[in-house]
Amino acid sequence: MFRHTDHLQFDVAPEKPDPVYARKLQELLGGEFGEMTVTMQYLMQGWNCRMDGKYKDLIMDVATEEIGHVEMIATMIARLLEGAPATESTKAAAADPVVAAVLGGMDPQQAIVSGGGPTLADSNGVPWNGRFIVAGGNLLADFYSNVAAEAQSRLQTARLYNMTDDPGVKDMLKFNLARDTYHQNMWLAAIEELKADGLSGTVAPTALLDEEHTEHAGTLWHLSDGTQSDQGRWATGTAPDGVHTNSFLPDPVALGGKAGAPPPDPQLYDTYDGSRGEPRSSAMGTEKGLMGKVKEAIDPHKP
Amino acid sequence: MFRHTDHLQFDVAPEKPDPVYARKLQELLGGEFGEMTVTMQYLMQGWNCRMDGKYKDLIMDVATEEIGHVEMIATMIARLLEGAPATESTKAAAADPVVAAVLGGMDPQQAIVSGGGPTLADSNGVPWNGRFIVAGGNLLADFYSNVAAEAQSRLQTARLYNMTDDPGVKDMLKFNLARDTYHQNMWLAAIEELKADGLSGTVAPTALLDEEHTEHAGTLWHLSDGTQSDQGRWATGTAPDGVHTNSFLPDPVALGGKAGAPPPDPQLYDTYDGSRGEPRSSAMGTEKGLMGKVKEAIDPHKP
Amino acid sequence: MFRHTDHLQFDVAPEKPDPVYARKLQELLGGEFGEMTVTMQYLMQGWNCRMDGKYKDLIMDVATEEIGHVEMIATMIARLLEGAPATESTKAAAADPVVAAVLGGMDPQQAIVSGGGPTLADSNGVPWNGRFIVAGGNLLADFYSNVAAEAQSRLQTARLYNMTDDPGVKDMLKFNLARDTYHQNMWLAAIEELKADGLSGTVAPTALLDEEHTEHAGTLWHLSDGTQSDQGRWATGTAPDGVHTNSFLPDPVALGGKAGAPPPDPQLYDTYDGSRGEPRSSAMGTEKGLMGKVKEAIDPHKP
Amino acid sequence: MFRHTDHLQFDVAPEKPDPVYARKLQELLGGEFGEMTVTMQYLMQGWNCRMDGKYKDLIMDVATEEIGHVEMIATMIARLLEGAPATESTKAAAADPVVAAVLGGMDPQQAIVSGGGPTLADSNGVPWNGRFIVAGGNLLADFYSNVAAEAQSRLQTARLYNMTDDPGVKDMLKFNLARDTYHQNMWLAAIEELKADGLSGTVAPTALLDEEHTEHAGTLWHLSDGTQSDQGRWATGTAPDGVHTNSFLPDPVALGGKAGAPPPDPQLYDTYDGSRGEPRSSAMGTEKGLMGKVKEAIDPHKP
Amino acid sequence: MFRHTDHLQFDVAPEKPDPVYARKLQELLGGEFGEMTVTMQYLMQGWNCRMDGKYKDLIMDVATEEIGHVEMIATMIARLLEGAPATESTKAAAADPVVAAVLGGMDPQQAIVSGGGPTLADSNGVPWNGRFIVAGGNLLADFYSNVAAEAQSRLQTARLYNMTDDPGVKDMLKFNLARDTYHQNMWLAAIEELKADGLSGTVAPTALLDEEHTEHAGTLWHLSDGTQSDQGRWATGTAPDGVHTNSFLPDPVALGGKAGAPPPDPQLYDTYDGSRGEPRSSAMGTEKGLMGKVKEAIDPHKP
Amino acid sequence: MFRHTDHLQFDVAPEKPDPVYARKLQELLGGEFGEMTVTMQYLMQGWNCRMDGKYKDLIMDVATEEIGHVEMIATMIARLLEGAPATESTKAAAADPVVAAVLGGMDPQQAIVSGGGPTLADSNGVPWNGRFIVAGGNLLADFYSNVAAEAQSRLQTARLYNMTDDPGVKDMLKFNLARDTYHQNMWLAAIEELKADGLSGTVAPTALLDEEHTEHAGTLWHLSDGTQSDQGRWATGTAPDGVHTNSFLPDPVALGGKAGAPPPDPQLYDTYDGSRGEPRSSAMGTEKGLMGKVKEAIDPHKP
Repeated sequence: MFRHTDHLQFDVAPEKPDPVYARKLQELLGGEFGEMTVTMQYLMQGWNCRMDGKYKDLIMDVATEEIGHVEMIATMIARLLEGAPATESTKAAAADPVVAAVLGGMDPQQAIVSGGGPTLADSNGVPWNGRFIVAGGNLLADFYSNVAAEAQSRLQTARLYNMTDDPGVKDMLKFNLARDTYHQNMWLAAIEELKADGLSGTVAPTALLDEEHTEHAGTLWHLSDGTQSDQGRWATGTAPDGVHTNSFLPDPVALGGKAGAPPPDPQLYDTYDGSRGEPRSSAMGTEKGLMGKVKEAIDPHKP
Repeated sequence: MFRHTDHLQFDVAPEKPDPVYARKLQELLGGEFGEMTVTMQYLMQGWNCRMDGKYKDLIMDVATEEIGHVEMIATMIARLLEGAPATESTKAAAADPVVAAVLGGMDPQQAIVSGGGPTLADSNGVPWNGRFIVAGGNLLADFYSNVAAEAQSRLQTARLYNMTDDPGVKDMLKFNLARDTYHQNMWLAAIEELKADGLSGTVAPTALLDEEHTEHAGTLWHLSDGTQSDQGRWATGTAPDGVHTNSFLPDPVALGGKAGAPPPDPQLYDTYDGSRGEPRSSAMGTEKGLMGKVKEAIDPHKP
Repeated sequence: MFRHTDHLQFDVAPEKPDPVYARKLQELLGGEFGEMTVTMQYLMQGWNCRMDGKYKDLIMDVATEEIGHVEMIATMIARLLEGAPATESTKAAAADPVVAAVLGGMDPQQAIVSGGGPTLADSNGVPWNGRFIVAGGNLLADFYSNVAAEAQSRLQTARLYNMTDDPGVKDMLKFNLARDTYHQNMWLAAIEELKADGLSGTVAPTALLDEEHTEHAGTLWHLSDGTQSDQGRWATGTAPDGVHTNSFLPDPVALGGKAGAPPPDPQLYDTYDGSRGEPRSSAMGTEKGLMGKVKEAIDPHKP
Repeated sequence: MFRHTDHLQFDVAPEKPDPVYARKLQELLGGEFGEMTVTMQYLMQGWNCRMDGKYKDLIMDVATEEIGHVEMIATMIARLLEGAPATESTKAAAADPVVAAVLGGMDPQQAIVSGGGPTLADSNGVPWNGRFIVAGGNLLADFYSNVAAEAQSRLQTARLYNMTDDPGVKDMLKFNLARDTYHQNMWLAAIEELKADGLSGTVAPTALLDEEHTEHAGTLWHLSDGTQSDQGRWATGTAPDGVHTNSFLPDPVALGGKAGAPPPDPQLYDTYDGSRGEPRSSAMGTEKGLMGKVKEAIDPHKP
Repeated sequence: MFRHTDHLQFDVAPEKPDPVYARKLQELLGGEFGEMTVTMQYLMQGWNCRMDGKYKDLIMDVATEEIGHVEMIATMIARLLEGAPATESTKAAAADPVVAAVLGGMDPQQAIVSGGGPTLADSNGVPWNGRFIVAGGNLLADFYSNVAAEAQSRLQTARLYNMTDDPGVKDMLKFNLARDTYHQNMWLAAIEELKADGLSGTVAPTALLDEEHTEHAGTLWHLSDGTQSDQGRWATGTAPDGVHTNSFLPDPVALGGKAGAPPPDPQLYDTYDGSRGEPRSSAMGTEKGLMGKVKEAIDPHKP
Repeated sequence: MFRHTDHLQFDVAPEKPDPVYARKLQELLGGEFGEMTVTMQYLMQGWNCRMDGKYKDLIMDVATEEIGHVEMIATMIARLLEGAPATESTKAAAADPVVAAVLGGMDPQQAIVSGGGPTLADSNGVPWNGRFIVAGGNLLADFYSNVAAEAQSRLQTARLYNMTDDPGVKDMLKFNLARDTYHQNMWLAAIEELKADGLSGTVAPTALLDEEHTEHAGTLWHLSDGTQSDQGRWATGTAPDGVHTNSFLPDPVALGGKAGAPPPDPQLYDTYDGSRGEPRSSAMGTEKGLMGKVKEAIDPHKP
């Protein structure tokens, strides 16, 4: 359960309205790596966490912080839009280069749809969606996703920092940059801690390492014609997991047979000339019907 | 430019058809971390790479390999669908528990739309889309995204490995597992190499560290009621970047003013009672019009 | 079955081209509350209506009217784009502030994709989709959705009315505003009629009122720190349904146990330390396997 | 800013696992009218509210409550999936009707992607997205949307209540049903209060009523052949707004001219035979070029 | 403007309910090539048509017919769902193989969301969207798209015809198949007519044929290792347009320089080592700033 | 399996940066008919092809070529963005009409998200998705889709050709136009070849022609009021398939019964007044329960 205070986590006080920048800031609200994404990513990871204790507690602390960041960006956008020329006509725009510059870069939905506030979308107006989040249940894999999300987020924030002169906006972004720095460090530390606690190895998941075709777990397949891909530590020596040995495969050959789909079910009307053998019907009751073969394939009585 | 051979990178030879599993495999083809994602993620990173040499060459080698993996999964799905009971009616399903078990778990579009082959979608039939990829131009941030993608991919592959008994399918997945292992190790090694080459620090981007509010770059805000989030190395000692010092903020207070959107433009018809001051009109030509203030805000002649 | 006349329901005669406004009008065509939405919303409600008579007839009358509104907006957009500077280069834009003002605010797809006509998308170019419609089969719930859709639509139309000076465009919008007024009144009247006919109560659905935990059906949980949420009629007195009594819960406590996901299936490789008990395997045939418990859980022979 | 307690708002204790039902419950989590929708709808309405006081406080109270509902449903889904036969093969399914029944109805991504937990998607696996929310800034319009959302939500919850026999699940749903009842009543009361406070009329927005073509603001256009659409109070008497008079238009005629797009810009290569007049070029500098007309159309020096 | 009669274009009378088939039929309603697609594709083409006369009249006739097909499929789905076991629990499913077979293949949203009716989505529940339609304004290109849409639609209808034994469903599909046959023939005839009328050539658009690099307009680039791609009429002789000559390029070489993105703007923080020259700043006012070069690039005073 | 060379298929050398045009070019990269679409469309068709030989070889040759086109457009976009004023503030834009013209037309995500490179989206920033491709398995239907895709692509390329003055960009587009010309001719030739080889007829699929209601396979239903739709060869004479005879149905009547959904399951709470008969419950075990009828409907023991 959650509680809320109307006080913002940090100051959100633009000096002046700037509707063009208000559109760009949508990227930090509803973009792939905006605040909505980390909020829901961490909440879902926390609720799906299978252990009590420090990891779950950490995730829930940070998730709860992030909802407050959504609030900050949403508030900033509304304030940057104050007095925006939402209802100016093209005629007015043409009369004044300043208005033209502003109108051309605005998000029309911030005026038409939201009445001067943010939408739950990115800087091109594409709505945020649930596939932006990563919560797979394996903490090593998820924490790498978290590091990546915070890194892309800080990168975008830094770019946006260079797109404004407003001291109030910059002040808020200095806070966001700092939190992104901490969160990157924090997830990296959590990865170290996971390993120290013996809860993961280097790759995720640390399972089936005995089953995988180990001869293919250390080779770089050289398939483009650049000449220097053999000159990094990924191509020689021991892999970061301390187990595998890297090597460079300068001219790899295809190891599999020819590609090709099987003869089609005639009732699906794929074009077919018989070159791949007799078309297999799925019709039941006929001796040649594939249904019998399907049943045999999944026969529970077979060993 | 690309060239293609019909030979597959590795064997794709299911022992028997299994249309239910063919649906699940869609996740590795068109899911958020399927082969389409890493293919396009690496291609876009490579084409957008701003340096010649080993990093670009590495990315292009791996990107080109991944297209071949899309080919493998697509071929496997078609082969698993051979003779699938695509055209069986519900009547037939009801007559035979085996058919019922199969029909219930199938993807109807693999039959109706693709004629017995894969679609470019995930295991729930939701189409792959371009927002699944990450290619931000900063190699540290992108390589963390690559590690994360390979980790989630290996995790999903491992789960799928446990969902089949077919030795042919398992053989192919053993190859995929091995490649995911290598690719995780490879991107981790590339991150080490980036740092060794002085091209990045620990957080991405390594910029604006002087500008950010540094007092907020090391603190864990305790906002949920779990009691153990202060017991990891993220809450004490030096951060992984070697610069910041971690600390725990047990009862953080909101640092900002009250949230709230400004008074609205009357022409947008937001509900308003005047409690936040005079509504600001964007109408031009009037003295009180906000347009004047907007112009002033972005006046190029001001210092 | 439908029939069509080429004559428009109302005049669509812009005085002059205005490609910037043509983009904004897309919101009324393919936006969440544009004409496509009400068209398909009412058609699906009508086809899914389970009664003959006045309600179904009303819905089909209005649905059929709305297709004509799609036609009007689509035609208006094409006419506003006549002679639009679709093929002007950036060089030309830079030479002339008027062209710059126009080019910056245009939808590039109206030129590149549609050849000077509308697309089936909103003012940011995001395509209309089937989840925009609401047709749940319960007329009270659906009619509330219809009131809401017409209200948002009239709101957006009113905002757009203030964004143009073109008398021809304004004339058409005066018609749209009037129809939105009628349709709001109409659905409100239909809700009254539903109640008068005894086909619904105040909440939807009027069912399971005896089953729900009635002690939670009248309380406002105070979870933010604003001080005035207890000062409306939602917090005291009798509820609009005439049955429940409103009250204010100033400091609600969580009524449930601790959140937390159960121990994971080991074959899914979620990170786990055993803190929540023995991991439950879904493997069949083993005594501890959860499959047995699943079967028991859904045992048809149990009472 | 938000704070969180690990205790759930209400008990979430299914008696037994039921992975088929876990899929259906996704509708209440990530569906169009699931808990994610009302959470973000109310948060965005609250942050975008232009008044201090009871309305904003109410919205924030309820929004904060709803995040806790997301937590409840997410937790319930994870618990219903405990020991789900996620890794059973089709062979196993075919061996046992119980397993077949379960496997056919499961969401494969809950196993493959989330590791036995919920996804941020609906019961068909389609991800939640930001266009599901409505926050237009006009409280009357938004509150109607809120009533509608709660009504559809209660309707879906009631249907889901009838799809399970599990007493633990039913107990939680009794709570959800009660909250949906209260929230419907609450928003209806808030609409009454808005009117009592003079902040809105009956239709939204209460503006431009003088500008709209009033003769079209009270007529039902009879365009389908059902015979009873004139028999409701929407077709006679005074409209709910107390201002307009309803009437029935039994055989409406099209009031506009013929539909039709204008002659195309030749550089866009639309097919054209000249039947609608001279094609208008947008080329600059030529006398016949339309660009001149566009400039004239938006000439700021014209009155 | 449109009018509607409640009578269906053709009989829609399933003999018996079949909820599994009701899900599959969604493909013909809301799938990429379902009735919604052709309805909106033809309507948008008709409204965007730039000529009066037979082509526009034809398009509008067929578009209007297609809305009636949406009505037919929507009605069929509702009827196939009559008495569907929407509220059966998993327990019931496990008790009866027939129920299990049915439940596993159902669309849960048809019950939970639509109350026993269709949704505006495909057979996997993915919503229809506006990008499914093609209306580019060039009739030759659009008519080819129409032929393709009708062909895919007939293909899917034929597959669905083989998936049911219900004589009532088959009777309706016989009508749909016939209409798809006619519509394919019709659009092919319309293409012939376009050419006979001199309104198009063989490729679309028939423009810029003098400007294109004609030496690349007849060659098949052999880039895969199949050996027979030179054995079709696409590799020899005169092309269908009667102008170009086909030829086979057995071992094509890349004609362009090396791929590679330029040095980045330092303020965007892309990783860069200087290997591609001096990073170009977009900062204004500096001599080396790229902004000066951008301005020069689009200098209107240059010839 | 694929191999890659860093050399581009053709020169990609813009003379000068043009960030506005870089946005428009996104349409050819990630739009519905951009290079991503044809790449994945042909790859999926090739992998799903059910015959060895010339058709499969042709498809794979062209598919492999198209990946190289994606590379070309992606590279061109990055080069057009060199030195783009990505980080200019609105203040700078207002100071200079050139910058204003540029900023208004830019894609903000190309700077914020991609760091000065392309995104995998269209010219409005909407991401590419897997439903854009068509690969149904029937070569006649698929080849018509291919002709259509190449025609729309060439149309869009031609429009874009008219939107730039840059000789380097035009040079590349001349190559793209030529390839689009060849590919249209090529697929048209392949359709002829399919027929010559006896692998298809005129409509797709060439099946069930005996089953369809043949009396409806040649008639144009006149449902709009245009007067000339009977004046094309689609309304008279023999159809292109050489079998059917076209005719014109000047005043078609609805052939079906009245539309209408059946009485609802009471447990779904659709509004119902009993006018369509007794509501049918799906409850098991009751005599009137529909479940019994469902079982009967799909009784396997019935003939």
